[in-house]
Amino acid sequence: MNKLSRFLYGGDYNPDQWPEDTWSKDIQVFKKADLNSATINIFSWALLEPEEGKYDFSKLDKIVQELSDADFDIVMGTSTAAMPAWMFKKYPDVARVDYQGRRHVFGQRHNFCPNSKNYQKLASNLVEQLVERYKNNKHITVWHVNNEYGGNCYCENCQNTFRDWLKNKYKTLDALNKAWNMNVWSHTIYDWDEIVVPNELGDTWGPEGTETIVAGLSIDYLRFQSESLQNLYKMEKEIIKKALPDVLVTTNFHSLPNKMIDYQKWAKDQDIISYDSYPTYDAPKYLPAFLYDLMRSLKHQPFMLMESAPSSVNWQPYSPLKRPGQMEATELQAVAHGADTVQFFQLKQAVGGSEKFHSAVIAHSQRTDTRVFHELEDLGKKLKQAGPTILGSKVNAKVAIVFDWSNFWSYEFVDGITQDLNYVDSILDYYRQFYERNIPTDVISVDDDFSQYDLVVAPVLYMVKSGLDEKINHYVEKGGNFVTTYMSGMVDSSDNVYLGGYPGPLKEVTGIWVEESDAVVPGQKITVEMNGKNYETSLMCDLIHPNDAKVLAKYSSEFYTGTAAVTEKKFGQGKAWYVGTKLNHEGLTQLFNHIIMETGAESLVADSNKLEVTKRITEDGKELYFVLNLSNEKRSLPGKFVEYQDILTGEKARKDMKGWDVQVLSR
Amino acid sequence: MNKLSRFLYGGDYNPDQWPEDTWSKDIQVFKKADLNSATINIFSWALLEPEEGKYDFSKLDKIVQELSDADFDIVMGTSTAAMPAWMFKKYPDVARVDYQGRRHVFGQRHNFCPNSKNYQKLASNLVEQLVERYKNNKHITVWHVNNEYGGNCYCENCQNTFRDWLKNKYKTLDALNKAWNMNVWSHTIYDWDEIVVPNELGDTWGPEGTETIVAGLSIDYLRFQSESLQNLYKMEKEIIKKALPDVLVTTNFHSLPNKMIDYQKWAKDQDIISYDSYPTYDAPKYLPAFLYDLMRSLKHQPFMLMESAPSSVNWQPYSPLKRPGQMEATELQAVAHGADTVQFFQLKQAVGGSEKFHSAVIAHSQRTDTRVFHELEDLGKKLKQAGPTILGSKVNAKVAIVFDWSNFWSYEFVDGITQDLNYVDSILDYYRQFYERNIPTDVISVDDDFSQYDLVVAPVLYMVKSGLDEKINHYVEKGGNFVTTYMSGMVDSSDNVYLGGYPGPLKEVTGIWVEESDAVVPGQKITVEMNGKNYETSLMCDLIHPNDAKVLAKYSSEFYTGTAAVTEKKFGQGKAWYVGTKLNHEGLTQLFNHIIMETGAESLVADSNKLEVTKRITEDGKELYFVLNLSNEKRSLPGKFVEYQDILTGEKARKDMKGWDVQVLSR
Amino acid sequence: MNKLSRFLYGGDYNPDQWPEDTWSKDIQVFKKADLNSATINIFSWALLEPEEGKYDFSKLDKIVQELSDADFDIVMGTSTAAMPAWMFKKYPDVARVDYQGRRHVFGQRHNFCPNSKNYQKLASNLVEQLVERYKNNKHITVWHVNNEYGGNCYCENCQNTFRDWLKNKYKTLDALNKAWNMNVWSHTIYDWDEIVVPNELGDTWGPEGTETIVAGLSIDYLRFQSESLQNLYKMEKEIIKKALPDVLVTTNFHSLPNKMIDYQKWAKDQDIISYDSYPTYDAPKYLPAFLYDLMRSLKHQPFMLMESAPSSVNWQPYSPLKRPGQMEATELQAVAHGADTVQFFQLKQAVGGSEKFHSAVIAHSQRTDTRVFHELEDLGKKLKQAGPTILGSKVNAKVAIVFDWSNFWSYEFVDGITQDLNYVDSILDYYRQFYERNIPTDVISVDDDFSQYDLVVAPVLYMVKSGLDEKINHYVEKGGNFVTTYMSGMVDSSDNVYLGGYPGPLKEVTGIWVEESDAVVPGQKITVEMNGKNYETSLMCDLIHPNDAKVLAKYSSEFYTGTAAVTEKKFGQGKAWYVGTKLNHEGLTQLFNHIIMETGAESLVADSNKLEVTKRITEDGKELYFVLNLSNEKRSLPGKFVEYQDILTGEKARKDMKGWDVQVLSR
Repeated sequence: MNKLSRFLYGGDYNPDQWPEDTWSKDIQVFKKADLNSATINIFSWALLEPEEGKYDFSKLDKIVQELSDADFDIVMGTSTAAMPAWMFKKYPDVARVDYQGRRHVFGQRHNFCPNSKNYQKLASNLVEQLVERYKNNKHITVWHVNNEYGGNCYCENCQNTFRDWLKNKYKTLDALNKAWNMNVWSHTIYDWDEIVVPNELGDTWGPEGTETIVAGLSIDYLRFQSESLQNLYKMEKEIIKKALPDVLVTTNFHSLPNKMIDYQKWAKDQDIISYDSYPTYDAPKYLPAFLYDLMRSLKHQPFMLMESAPSSVNWQPYSPLKRPGQMEATELQAVAHGADTVQFFQLKQAVGGSEKFHSAVIAHSQRTDTRVFHELEDLGKKLKQAGPTILGSKVNAKVAIVFDWSNFWSYEFVDGITQDLNYVDSILDYYRQFYERNIPTDVISVDDDFSQYDLVVAPVLYMVKSGLDEKINHYVEKGGNFVTTYMSGMVDSSDNVYLGGYPGPLKEVTGIWVEESDAVVPGQKITVEMNGKNYETSLMCDLIHPNDAKVLAKYSSEFYTGTAAVTEKKFGQGKAWYVGTKLNHEGLTQLFNHIIMETGAESLVADSNKLEVTKRITEDGKELYFVLNLSNEKRSLPGKFVEYQDILTGEKARKDMKGWDVQVLSR
Repeated sequence: MNKLSRFLYGGDYNPDQWPEDTWSKDIQVFKKADLNSATINIFSWALLEPEEGKYDFSKLDKIVQELSDADFDIVMGTSTAAMPAWMFKKYPDVARVDYQGRRHVFGQRHNFCPNSKNYQKLASNLVEQLVERYKNNKHITVWHVNNEYGGNCYCENCQNTFRDWLKNKYKTLDALNKAWNMNVWSHTIYDWDEIVVPNELGDTWGPEGTETIVAGLSIDYLRFQSESLQNLYKMEKEIIKKALPDVLVTTNFHSLPNKMIDYQKWAKDQDIISYDSYPTYDAPKYLPAFLYDLMRSLKHQPFMLMESAPSSVNWQPYSPLKRPGQMEATELQAVAHGADTVQFFQLKQAVGGSEKFHSAVIAHSQRTDTRVFHELEDLGKKLKQAGPTILGSKVNAKVAIVFDWSNFWSYEFVDGITQDLNYVDSILDYYRQFYERNIPTDVISVDDDFSQYDLVVAPVLYMVKSGLDEKINHYVEKGGNFVTTYMSGMVDSSDNVYLGGYPGPLKEVTGIWVEESDAVVPGQKITVEMNGKNYETSLMCDLIHPNDAKVLAKYSSEFYTGTAAVTEKKFGQGKAWYVGTKLNHEGLTQLFNHIIMETGAESLVADSNKLEVTKRITEDGKELYFVLNLSNEKRSLPGKFVEYQDILTGEKARKDMKGWDVQVLSR
Repeated sequence: MNKLSRFLYGGDYNPDQWPEDTWSKDIQVFKKADLNSATINIFSWALLEPEEGKYDFSKLDKIVQELSDADFDIVMGTSTAAMPAWMFKKYPDVARVDYQGRRHVFGQRHNFCPNSKNYQKLASNLVEQLVERYKNNKHITVWHVNNEYGGNCYCENCQNTFRDWLKNKYKTLDALNKAWNMNVWSHTIYDWDEIVVPNELGDTWGPEGTETIVAGLSIDYLRFQSESLQNLYKMEKEIIKKALPDVLVTTNFHSLPNKMIDYQKWAKDQDIISYDSYPTYDAPKYLPAFLYDLMRSLKHQPFMLMESAPSSVNWQPYSPLKRPGQMEATELQAVAHGADTVQFFQLKQAVGGSEKFHSAVIAHSQRTDTRVFHELEDLGKKLKQAGPTILGSKVNAKVAIVFDWSNFWSYEFVDGITQDLNYVDSILDYYRQFYERNIPTDVISVDDDFSQYDLVVAPVLYMVKSGLDEKINHYVEKGGNFVTTYMSGMVDSSDNVYLGGYPGPLKEVTGIWVEESDAVVPGQKITVEMNGKNYETSLMCDLIHPNDAKVLAKYSSEFYTGTAAVTEKKFGQGKAWYVGTKLNHEGLTQLFNHIIMETGAESLVADSNKLEVTKRITEDGKELYFVLNLSNEKRSLPGKFVEYQDILTGEKARKDMKGWDVQVLSR
């Protein structure tokens, strides 16, 4: 279970937008490129249920039949992410109320209220019908629930459900008032029904989710909405599992990453993680790597690359073409980090709708003598060759970066120090240190087991929930290595500050306390001195008292010149570092040269010649080195690999790698 | 008919904002500057109808009398563009519901719901009263309906009327679902009343009219709203025409140009086109030229310059003064392109309201010993001299640029390739080629007769409606010359993509097909090589297969170096060019040197010394050359004209033209 | 009366957010820093009145007791600025309707509708209870009503009250229609209930309060809302005064300055002015000086510095720390300009809520061995020493700058000339001239007595209400000196333009008239020539006819080269200057060298070595010179002061002043 039967090469296919007589021709084209899978029925509710309780599966039956006849793996959508027009008319409460307090009407997609009983009932009914009808088809190997869950609702129904959720969480109003520190600004409440949703008419302001008076309320609302959506997912999943206990059930995660949903809480309910990957043309190459590592780490298992673009992504500000070779290289980057599928949006380019200029396997020209199609064929051939070997292989990381949704939310709610706080950016600074050294890295939650890692890095660990400090202390005492930074250890899980000096409960393990934090203002140049060299820093500067910690770097400007900027503490068997400012990349690299040496974290290859290198290990212990040239320029293969074989081609490793070349090397 | 009895010099006059005893003095001032016309009663509804059905024409009677006594041509407004306060209170449905779904209340202007029966009835009643009262006054030579129609309403009433409009257009829901490609995202509908207006609560997002899921819906709504306003205009016009079949009826078009209204569809209902011209201080001088050519081409007849500013325009971000001579030159630029009037907003500067700092003939100082007034006198004298000759003269253009509202809408709805798509900018690139060469140019609709032109240029002809391709093919076959560009031939009239490769139905005439289109991203520098020289290009680059077309220019950067960027195809007796990228001005000029030579399009003067030159031809065949120095610098008159006479002064042509000097030269 | 019994050193203290057993320890810490005052009960309504009419003063009793026992001066808040949740639920009308027409719900603060009868009744009840309970406590020396009044409501209730307010002001609809010039755009009304609030659904657009059709309506609404809030204040004050006729009552003014409230109208109802001061880190140092001078001038008496930050201000975009010494210097800058208190927000840093990262006397660390605490101790010691001498001392200014709320509103509503009009900026240009010369300056209203000043400067005196022109003429005739500028004398109190040429009623005293005003556009460089030197100018250029005025400066670019830019007119015994453009600082300095020489305005010290110098005079005539080094750099004390004594330390004046050093020098 939780494993695909073969390496999938396919993607989203919407034949119901096309005449039936085109379908078999489409499938022939897919087969020409060695596709073996199609994801269907993502947005067909209006066709499947033209009026309430009246179902019409005739089209879907034929689609399923044709794909089954072609021996495709079918990823079966449940179609509940876009509601038919009649539903809005008959049950207006199925539609979300937005952050401005306005009930929406028919249109768009992904706009159901997660707490609407009508929506829940109608969605359940549909899924029951689907499962009943298709449960015996063995080609349906994955069920894909809904689509790209996300976004919040602020309706009265959600408000009532939220009150119940809070009653369950806090039990008493006293506890709630205390957790949310409600005596501030006369917010103390005396009745559960005095709680109002944190939208623009209540306690928040600015663009959705950016400014709030009572952070505890806003963060709890995000937790509640995330859970509400997760409950919808579970509702559908249970219907499927009842009939098909052994089938894989998933829903596609997305974004960079999605701020609205706590994917780590959700992961346990996924049989297999799936992810839609759309980095912008100018994203640094370590950003998708980070996201793939995050997805893999959610269950510490291979994941599905559920969506990606064969070439341009239409909805981004600029949609340049993927350069020759770029598509193959970037799809294989996902595989290098743990994907067991390569799936596209879209298999056939729509003629209308807002995604009609998104690239596809079958483009508007409907020709196969095109650059993009030839590249898809080439990749198909390689995956056919190497897929069986890759399938199910794992990544073994001894380094972990902590990424946490409660911190994501709370860190960006902070009203103070500087407006430039950005959670993902702060995490990426540190991820990049490992990426550029080709050190395998997991991206884990605060609830993951730290003991399996030599080094755990938790940048901007602003919110430290109850028990996490003991866990960290224990980990380091037993020999673990831990890095944290400015803006860490500041608040509890309700966003109330720990008294006694920052970083609160992390003072012990880091051996320091922070008296003040200075904002770096636009145009200001602040430097840090480390081993005799100065490095620029930005964002903020902690003024640190290194109680019993060793000072690794000092500020070399402003009135705090000469005071500690980075410290190191021996704690039990391990060590803890505190980085009090946002060092530039050069400075952070210098620091991590030291930290990595101290912790013994190992690069996969001594000098990678700017190639990205990852390693997956098959169940029978075979090591697969993914060597990716994610650039336009030629690079030389590291000497270590010259005797290896490229399993994508079955041939000897190429010493010279041209732009966007990728090899999967095995001994 | 459709012709003014004299060249008008006047503008908007609002005596009802002033004490009655000032009126006769105002008229004396106007006469001092040789004004012969006043536009009145634009916003007087509240005074004319202080309560429903109770009319008071006493003030208006006196105004009409005074102007008639002064032998002024009266342009009579119908006052329906700003509703009295009592109307909002009594009939709230007269007010628009905005893009955010909010019903507005009393205030502003131009905010009536076009489909409000109450508004329609009340406006009709008023116009009937006006016509009945003033139909016998022969000084009223033009009726000016409403004012500057524009903007959309999103109320329930509009929604219902829209559903009827759609029933009439599509007949069946099947046809509508197909046209709008509604199977995407489960949008299929089963009842006409499931259609909702495309506002922020439904299927669109972003600022009004910029982002939409179902482009077909949004474009149809724009067509519907444009027609709804046009129907209001026709309602008023019919009342006037019933009593006064021979009077000229118009409403003033406006903006750069107005995106919300299809002026080409509307033009047939105008007896004479009128236009309000307010270029910003930093607009290139070919922009107003383009707009005047567009206005003239709407009916291929002279038009009224209904509004313009004697000096500064208050509502623009910056309102610099018009420099000495600039007012005269820019007003005459309109005449040079076909205007038969010079009219200002405003004849008398208001003391209150949001336009009180807009310039006027009678300024706040109420003095006539001012720079601006002296210039107005000077222009008045010249128009008195030359107006009779100019009146009714026509422009004869052998080149046409295609401008089309359905393309304006659809092109800017495109979600893909690049966010920088701007319809007017793309058209202006090409218009400028003819403007700078002083080649007379019409700006026509896709429904105009192409056969009268030697060269038809249709940039970004994104939407090609049914039959347009045949029309183009036929035109070129018979010897016409046709230029089109990137982003052409892509969709049908419902915004559904033509399959088989871009530019869809224009593949035949251009002899090419486009496999991919690359977005040019910020900071990227892409060049095109033509005749051994490189030119920078921007926006996007089509990757072209020049099937049987000749390659005129090739890309000289990116992976498509060496492939076709511009092509030429001999098709029947004519030729067709395809320009696959947004060439910079230098490159486009180089290309059009070739195209113009090929097509024989003629400049009015070989070397114009950077002067703008146009030609109007009187009914008796006299050629009037307008030679305009639209700059601060001195220029020499081209040799061709030295023996001509300036009909503005009745004197011999001036060889040296100082800054902002204008001559209208005749042999 | 109207005088504090001692110099206060304290600030906002919210013990009700903390366990009771921490309070006495807090007070010990305060005493360690020589604090002698606490402001309490600002936001405790929800705790004081957990349900309607049921009061619980137990916590507050104890707080008052503890502070009294410590001999603190208590500034007692009335807690009416943040309403409890139950109030929104029971009486929804207590909440404001925003500019977009939306009724808000529970959350935030400062969001009561000023015209809600329910709010008024509930607030009155609370204040009555508070006064009754604490009226006998002599430690309560100041009552602090509500908090930081500001912002507008647009509800139906306000609309109805506004109609009554207008009836009272205008008596007849004819008068109102005339005042608002309502014949423009058919706005004439015939019934008082046709008047609608100027929000986004009515006559205005753009961000709140920036764009309006009928400026008279919008300005009257601002006047009405300002008065409505003032009435609320008076309602509470009267309750307090009835029981405690001799206690000081105040509410804290704020912002830079607050545009929504006419503090000059309000000042007469304040027993003592109090002000919250939060300049941003990059504000020029003359901005807080200007604001303090404004606050002092409101009653021409010392004021309370009610709130300020010990170090960083959390809610600004960037919150850098105050540098060592900076806090003390900037707090004393307020005292230098007339403050008789130094009070902070906040005495104890909250653990939750949106201000938790605002600096405090007791920080999150709760330690006293910190930089900030040591500086607070140092300042405490100095104030203890010098406070008694400073208390009640006055500033004697012979120069005044006019600042007027009706002008603030109307000037920024102007639709024309340039979008860059900014009232405060224009005023500051002129204030800075006196600030940099250390010339004591009052910032006065148009209703102040001008005769006490040698020089009155009224920049951008756009709106000149009835009688103000005579007042100015009279002042100058009798020997006064008057400076005004571009954009002056343009409109009456309803924003209707004065006819006959700008600056309208100021033409006589200035001896000029302005024919036209040119906007300076981005990138344009315009210069003015004065005494043979050229100075750059910006914003706009008046084209001036210097009837019988002397020309001091001429334009040296554009078509108006050589025409007057600055003029001087002898008028009776005095002189009047007109500055027709926004001269750069260098040019304005050159001009004021001349004006100051002409008027005899005196600097406090000939050469201040870039130190800020002010003078306060005690009741017994002692002169206190405040010498402030508001910079990081060392400066030398001017020779004049070397024999003086620093009353902060009781020691001899320091000749070398290090960065942020301050001395208060007395002979």
